[in-house]
Amino acid sequence: MKVSKMFLTTLREVPAEAEIPSHILLLRAGFIKKLVSGIYGFLPLGSRTLQKIENIVREEMDAAGSQEILMSALQPAELWQESGRWGAYGPEMWRIKDRNQREFCLGPTHEEIFTDIVRQAVSSYRQLPLSLYQIQTKYRDEARPRFGLMRSREFIMKDAYSFDKDEAGLDVSYKTMYDAYTKVFERCGLKFRPVEADSGAIGGNNSHEFTALSEVGESEIVYCDACDFAATSERAEFKDEIQAGVSDAELEKVYTPGTKTIEAVCEYLGADVKKSIKALLIQVAEEEGPGAKYVLALIRGDRQLNMTKLVNALNVPEYLVSMADEEKMSAVTGCVGGFTGPIGIHDCTIILDSELKGSKDMVCGANEKDHHFKGVSEGRDFKADKVVDLKLLQEGDPCPCCGKPVKVARGIEVGQVFKLGTKYSEPMHCYYRDENQVDRPVVMGCYGIGVTRTMAAVVEQHHDENGIIWPMSLAPYHVDIVIAKSGDPVQSALAEEIEKKLEAAGVEVMVDDRDERPGVKFKDSELIGIPIRITVGKKAGEGIVEYKLRRGGDMEELTADEAVSKAVALVDLEKRG
Amino acid sequence: MKVSKMFLTTLREVPAEAEIPSHILLLRAGFIKKLVSGIYGFLPLGSRTLQKIENIVREEMDAAGSQEILMSALQPAELWQESGRWGAYGPEMWRIKDRNQREFCLGPTHEEIFTDIVRQAVSSYRQLPLSLYQIQTKYRDEARPRFGLMRSREFIMKDAYSFDKDEAGLDVSYKTMYDAYTKVFERCGLKFRPVEADSGAIGGNNSHEFTALSEVGESEIVYCDACDFAATSERAEFKDEIQAGVSDAELEKVYTPGTKTIEAVCEYLGADVKKSIKALLIQVAEEEGPGAKYVLALIRGDRQLNMTKLVNALNVPEYLVSMADEEKMSAVTGCVGGFTGPIGIHDCTIILDSELKGSKDMVCGANEKDHHFKGVSEGRDFKADKVVDLKLLQEGDPCPCCGKPVKVARGIEVGQVFKLGTKYSEPMHCYYRDENQVDRPVVMGCYGIGVTRTMAAVVEQHHDENGIIWPMSLAPYHVDIVIAKSGDPVQSALAEEIEKKLEAAGVEVMVDDRDERPGVKFKDSELIGIPIRITVGKKAGEGIVEYKLRRGGDMEELTADEAVSKAVALVDLEKRG
Repeated sequence: MKVSKMFLTTLREVPAEAEIPSHILLLRAGFIKKLVSGIYGFLPLGSRTLQKIENIVREEMDAAGSQEILMSALQPAELWQESGRWGAYGPEMWRIKDRNQREFCLGPTHEEIFTDIVRQAVSSYRQLPLSLYQIQTKYRDEARPRFGLMRSREFIMKDAYSFDKDEAGLDVSYKTMYDAYTKVFERCGLKFRPVEADSGAIGGNNSHEFTALSEVGESEIVYCDACDFAATSERAEFKDEIQAGVSDAELEKVYTPGTKTIEAVCEYLGADVKKSIKALLIQVAEEEGPGAKYVLALIRGDRQLNMTKLVNALNVPEYLVSMADEEKMSAVTGCVGGFTGPIGIHDCTIILDSELKGSKDMVCGANEKDHHFKGVSEGRDFKADKVVDLKLLQEGDPCPCCGKPVKVARGIEVGQVFKLGTKYSEPMHCYYRDENQVDRPVVMGCYGIGVTRTMAAVVEQHHDENGIIWPMSLAPYHVDIVIAKSGDPVQSALAEEIEKKLEAAGVEVMVDDRDERPGVKFKDSELIGIPIRITVGKKAGEGIVEYKLRRGGDMEELTADEAVSKAVALVDLEKRG
Repeated sequence: MKVSKMFLTTLREVPAEAEIPSHILLLRAGFIKKLVSGIYGFLPLGSRTLQKIENIVREEMDAAGSQEILMSALQPAELWQESGRWGAYGPEMWRIKDRNQREFCLGPTHEEIFTDIVRQAVSSYRQLPLSLYQIQTKYRDEARPRFGLMRSREFIMKDAYSFDKDEAGLDVSYKTMYDAYTKVFERCGLKFRPVEADSGAIGGNNSHEFTALSEVGESEIVYCDACDFAATSERAEFKDEIQAGVSDAELEKVYTPGTKTIEAVCEYLGADVKKSIKALLIQVAEEEGPGAKYVLALIRGDRQLNMTKLVNALNVPEYLVSMADEEKMSAVTGCVGGFTGPIGIHDCTIILDSELKGSKDMVCGANEKDHHFKGVSEGRDFKADKVVDLKLLQEGDPCPCCGKPVKVARGIEVGQVFKLGTKYSEPMHCYYRDENQVDRPVVMGCYGIGVTRTMAAVVEQHHDENGIIWPMSLAPYHVDIVIAKSGDPVQSALAEEIEKKLEAAGVEVMVDDRDERPGVKFKDSELIGIPIRITVGKKAGEGIVEYKLRRGGDMEELTADEAVSKAVALVDLEKRG
C-alpha cells in the first residue's frame, strides 16, 4: 500500500483529552478516532490491527473446540427479567424501546442470549459438552468513560460460553479456555498474569482475571513471590490476625477533642491502631425511588475497606452502594461525622469484619462530637448483624496462602474466565436429560476477552517516547519501505522491487512514497510502530538499502535481497505471535 | 469438523413464521435463529457463510482501492441535526439516550459519521480522491420486519463512501464501485441486474440498485429487452402519451349512479378509460403533532400512481405520506369517496401527472355522490399546483428509451450505489482547498451492500425442495463426508484419511459421524447445502466411496483418492466464486 494513497491521520500534537500512553498514541498514530466521550471509530491502521487480534482469538477459540456464532446486540428485556438481571446493571445498561414500546437493551454481555439459544436446541446429554463464542460489539454506558479504548461505552468483546453436564465437565471446559486465553495473550505479545478474581454481577464462585501488567491499569492485583498466590485486590482473601489473650476491659467514654481520624485518636489515647475499630457508614440506594438503607461497616483501624467484599456481603447491585454523608445521616442513624461507632447507632445494619469477631478492649467512636469509647468488647457492647471478611489486602500484608508479605501491582483486565454453574440455567430452565432420564440444569461457564481493550493494553506495554512498537503479530503492516527522495526513479524502482518480493512472500508492506522529508517519514513510521523499516536512499543505485528494527538495534546497510530475506525470515518467525 | 461435536440445529418442520424459501431454509438448516421479530442470530453454519460473504466483499473493496475502517453503531443526534436528517428517518430510526440524557441513534446508515471523519482529516486536494468502507451492524426499526434476513431490524451492511474533488472524480469512483459490486455479486453466485434507482432518503440524483432476480423480492424492476433500459419501478420514467387534436368540450355534470371505479364510470358513459382522470387523496402528516395536509394526485384513469415519485415531488419524508380516508376528509376538502375530482376541491394541493397537462374532454369525479363531470379541460376547469410525472411504469407500457413494451420482474435489492454530490459535504462543511487555494465542497458517493440480505438472496436463487444449494464460494463447508455406519472402524478410518487429505489441500470438511441412519445424514447434508458429498459405506474395505454433487448429476463410485482429487479440483475451480 502506497502511503500517498492511505488515509493516514498521524498527529504531531498530543490530544488534550488523552492522558495515558495507549490513548495518546492510538490517537496520534491514527489508529482510532473519538466520536463522542467513550465512543471510538477505528481508522484503516486500527482496523487492520483489530482484525489481527480478532483472528488470533478466533484461531485459538476454534482450536479449543469452541464454535463461532454471532448474536444480536439488541436484546429484549424479557430475557433479562427471566434471569433476574434487568435491574442489576443499573444505569450502565443502555436501554431502548422499539416503535411498539417494547423494551430492549444493547447487550453489555450475552449470558441470557446464549442460555436461550442452548435451552431451545439442547435436550440430551449426548449434545454436551458444547462451547460457543462470538466476537461482537458490546455496550456499557460507563459513568466515567476514560483512557480511550481502556474503558469505553461501545467496545468489541469475544465472549464464549460453555455448557456441560456437571461440575467435572465445567472444570475441563474452564481449563481449556484458561489455556486458550494464555495462548491468545502470549500471541498478542502481552506480559500478563492470570489472577483469582471476583465474579461481580455475572455471578458464580470461581473466576480468574487475565491481567496485563501496567502502571496505568485500573485493576489492582496482589501476588506473592514466595508462593503461587495471585488475586485481584477486590477478590483477595485476608488471613485474619487474631489477638489472643486479651481480656475484657471496662467500657469508658473519653473526651478526645479534635481527633477526627483513627490515627489521631489512637495517638491521643496512646493506643495501638490495631486496637481500634474504624466505622464507615454506607448508603444502599433503592433500585427505584429516592429512599436508601444504611449499613455500618466495621474494620480494624489500620485496615482498608474492600468495597467489593462489602457489596457481595450485601448482595445488592454494586451501583446502588456508596459512602453515606455522615453529617446528613446523623438524625437518621445517630452517627456523628468523625466520631461514628457501633455503640448506640440505630436504623442501620452492622457488618463486622471477621478479624474483629471477639475483639476486646478496643477504641471506637462514641457517636458524640469529640468523644470516643475505650475498653469496647465486641458482643458485649455491640452486636453485629453479619460477620465477613471486609478487608483489602495491601502491599506487605501477609499472603493468605503462605503468610509472607504480598506485593501489589497494577494491571489491565484483558480477559476473564468464570464458572457460572447453574446461575443462569436454573432460572432460565436450560435443562438436559441425563443418561438415567433425569432432567438436570446445564452447568455453564463464561469467558470474555476485551478485544479493543487488548489493543490498548499491548500499546501500554509496547511503546517508547517516539511511538508504538507493535509485536509482529499485531502490526498493521510488517514492513515500512521509506523512499528517501520521492520521485527519484532509481529509488522508486528499487522500492517497488522490494515491495513485490516481500508481498510475494506474504509480508504486508507499506511504501512511504510521500513528497516529504525522510525525517517526517521516519517519525511517522516510528509513531505507527511498524516492526521493520527498510529505507531506500542514495545507495539505491548500488542496490544497497538501510534495514532497521523498530524495537531497537543498529541500522544495517544491506543489499536489497539481503534485506528482503532478513525481513521475510523475521516475519515468518514472529508473525503468528 | 465432526458433526457429532457440531452445534447443528436442523429442523424437519417448517417454522410457522417463515413464508419464503430463504427464511424457511436458513431456519431449518440451522444457519440463523430468531430472537424477536426482525432480529436474528447466526449459528455456526450461518456464521461461516456470513464471513465468506464478508471476505468476498472485503477482497473486492480492497482491490477497488477502498480502505476499511470501523465506526460505531451509536451516533450522536448532533451530527444528524447538522445534516438535517434527524427528522427524516422517522420511527424507523432506533433512538436512545445515554445516562446524561444525550440523544443518540443506532445508525441506519453512516453518511454523517464518514463525512465528519473526512472533514476533520482532509484539507487539501492532495488528499483526494479517497474511498473508505466498513462492514458493520446497522439498525432500522422496520414497521413490518419480515422474510427473515430480507427485511430485519438489525442487519450487517458493507457501506462505502467516496470523496472526490469534482463530479468527474465522482464518476470515476462510482464506476469503480459499480464494477466492484458486479464482481462481488458474481462471486456470490447471484443472478442480478444493476438498474437505475430512486435514491430515497439518502438523496442525490444518480443511483443504481443491484437487484438479485427473485419472485419473492420486494423490489419491482422494469426492463426492456429491446434496449438497455432497466430501472426500479419506483424510479422508472414514463414516456407521456399525449393525445393530440382533441378540442375543448362543454363541461357537464352527469348522473352516474353506483359507479365508484373509473372503469365503471367509463363503461357507463361509453368513454375510453384513457379519457378519464383518476383522483387520489393523499395525507401528509406533520412531523410532530397530530395535524396533516392534503394532496390530490391526478393521473390518467388507466395509470397507477407511483408513490415514490409523489413523495419526491412533495419533498417530505416518505413515512409521513399515506392514502387519506376520503370519507373522513369530505368536510375538510369537499371530496366524496368514489366521486372525488379536482373541480371544486379545496384546502388541498393538486399535483397533476405530466401526461394530463393540457388534456381536454376528460371525465372526472364531481365531488358529489353518484355524479361525475364530463367535457373537463385541464387549465380551464381546474388548475394544478404542480405538474410532474406520477406514473408507475408497468408491464407492457412503452419503454422510456425506445418505446417498445417493457417487462416487469421482481428482485431483491442487495446493493445500491449513489452519487451524493455535495448533499452532505455542504451542510456539514466538508471542504478541501483546491490547486488554486479555493475552498470547495468534497463531492461524495455512497455505496451499500446488504451482507446478511445477500445471504438470503443467494438461498432464494439456489435451493430446491430438499434444501439449500450453496455456491462453492459461500458454502459453510465444501465437502460433507458421510460415514454410512458410525463406529465401523474401516469406514471411520477411510473417512478420516479422506478428511485429512482434503484439509491438507485447503478444503473445508465436515464429517458426519453421528449415530444415525444414512438417510438422516443425507437429508441434513442436502438441507444444509454442502456442494460435495462423499459417502463412505460398505465398499470402504475396497477403498471405494460414493461421490455426489448437491447441485445434481449422478452419484459416482470412485476410489477414495479419485474422490479427493475430484473434490479438490472442483473446490479450487469454484471456491473464489
